[in-house]
Amino acid sequence: MGAEPSFRRLPRAVREQQMLDAAVVVFSRRGYHGAGVDEIAEAAGISKPMVYAYLGTKEELFIACLYREGARLMEGLVAATLADDLTPDEQLRRGLRAFFAFVGTHRDGWIVLYQQARGQERFAGVLAQMRQRLVEIVSGMLARAAGPGVRDDDVTTSGYAVVGAAEALAEWVVNHPDEDHDRLAARLTNVIWLGIGSVVDPR
Amino acid sequence: MGAEPSFRRLPRAVREQQMLDAAVVVFSRRGYHGAGVDEIAEAAGISKPMVYAYLGTKEELFIACLYREGARLMEGLVAATLADDLTPDEQLRRGLRAFFAFVGTHRDGWIVLYQQARGQERFAGVLAQMRQRLVEIVSGMLARAAGPGVRDDDVTTSGYAVVGAAEALAEWVVNHPDEDHDRLAARLTNVIWLGIGSVVDPR
Repeated sequence: MGAEPSFRRLPRAVREQQMLDAAVVVFSRRGYHGAGVDEIAEAAGISKPMVYAYLGTKEELFIACLYREGARLMEGLVAATLADDLTPDEQLRRGLRAFFAFVGTHRDGWIVLYQQARGQERFAGVLAQMRQRLVEIVSGMLARAAGPGVRDDDVTTSGYAVVGAAEALAEWVVNHPDEDHDRLAARLTNVIWLGIGSVVDPR
Repeated sequence: MGAEPSFRRLPRAVREQQMLDAAVVVFSRRGYHGAGVDEIAEAAGISKPMVYAYLGTKEELFIACLYREGARLMEGLVAATLADDLTPDEQLRRGLRAFFAFVGTHRDGWIVLYQQARGQERFAGVLAQMRQRLVEIVSGMLARAAGPGVRDDDVTTSGYAVVGAAEALAEWVVNHPDEDHDRLAARLTNVIWLGIGSVVDPR
């Protein structure tokens, strides 16, 4: 309990974020099963009972990580695409760039979100909800771009395809830290954009 | 051991396939952890000790399922794209159609391969190898189509994007049994094809 005095001086919210930072790193390196709360407590510089008191069991801690990393990803995406005067393709390009930048700079967060959470049946539902929200956001962009002449099913399946392609490229980003996120986003936008054009106006 | 007499009349290879058929169904419905070898034995109509004798532990049984379903998927893909006179885009379209048809008609196999195996750290390596092979096949098609003017990295990342998009659409196929596989393959091919064209010849 040597860390207690400094611990008491920190606001609860700050301390919680530090615990989550430590937990994300430990989960991403050890996996959900391999990670121990004692290791997370040590990495955060506080006692194990305090981790339990603040954030609950290992399962609750993992879910808290999942929600925080998911929220960060979504916030980044939405912030990147908010400006009023963006054309839909520019909106999509910025959204993809924000996504790849999140993966590249929050590598541990992405590994927890995607590889670890997807690998555990008990967390797959939380992840599926976030993913569904992503598909809806992307499908919405595609629908606005494509206009009224396109079948809903075509827009939705295109949304799935875009999210799937972006997730697969995220794996590439994780393994290629020097990849240019802007170039990757521009390339994928071109692929999607021309394809959407072909749905509206088949050549 | 009431099933033993008829069991003895069947060749080993046939009996193994029956056990794997039963195992794929049980794994896909119960998940790896939820599935029991006794339930698989019952579904295959043989005794539990005989399942162990033929195919080993539950882990070995699951890996055998994984390899068989993966081989089926690859064989379908390769067979669909083998004819000598196919243009690369027709090759890609047929490959995607074969992929969606596999997912649609071997729904249990796909769920075992993709959802269950990916969810278990101990099997993720086997699945990653198969996926890598898929990315190589697709990237090879794209490279032949794009010709010598394209960067290797662009072809490889496009291969990842295509495989990711196809996997995401497989989820759609699992949940929409009436989806037209041909239409889905044609749509995705158009998206990819126009995009690859834009890499070779930016507009």
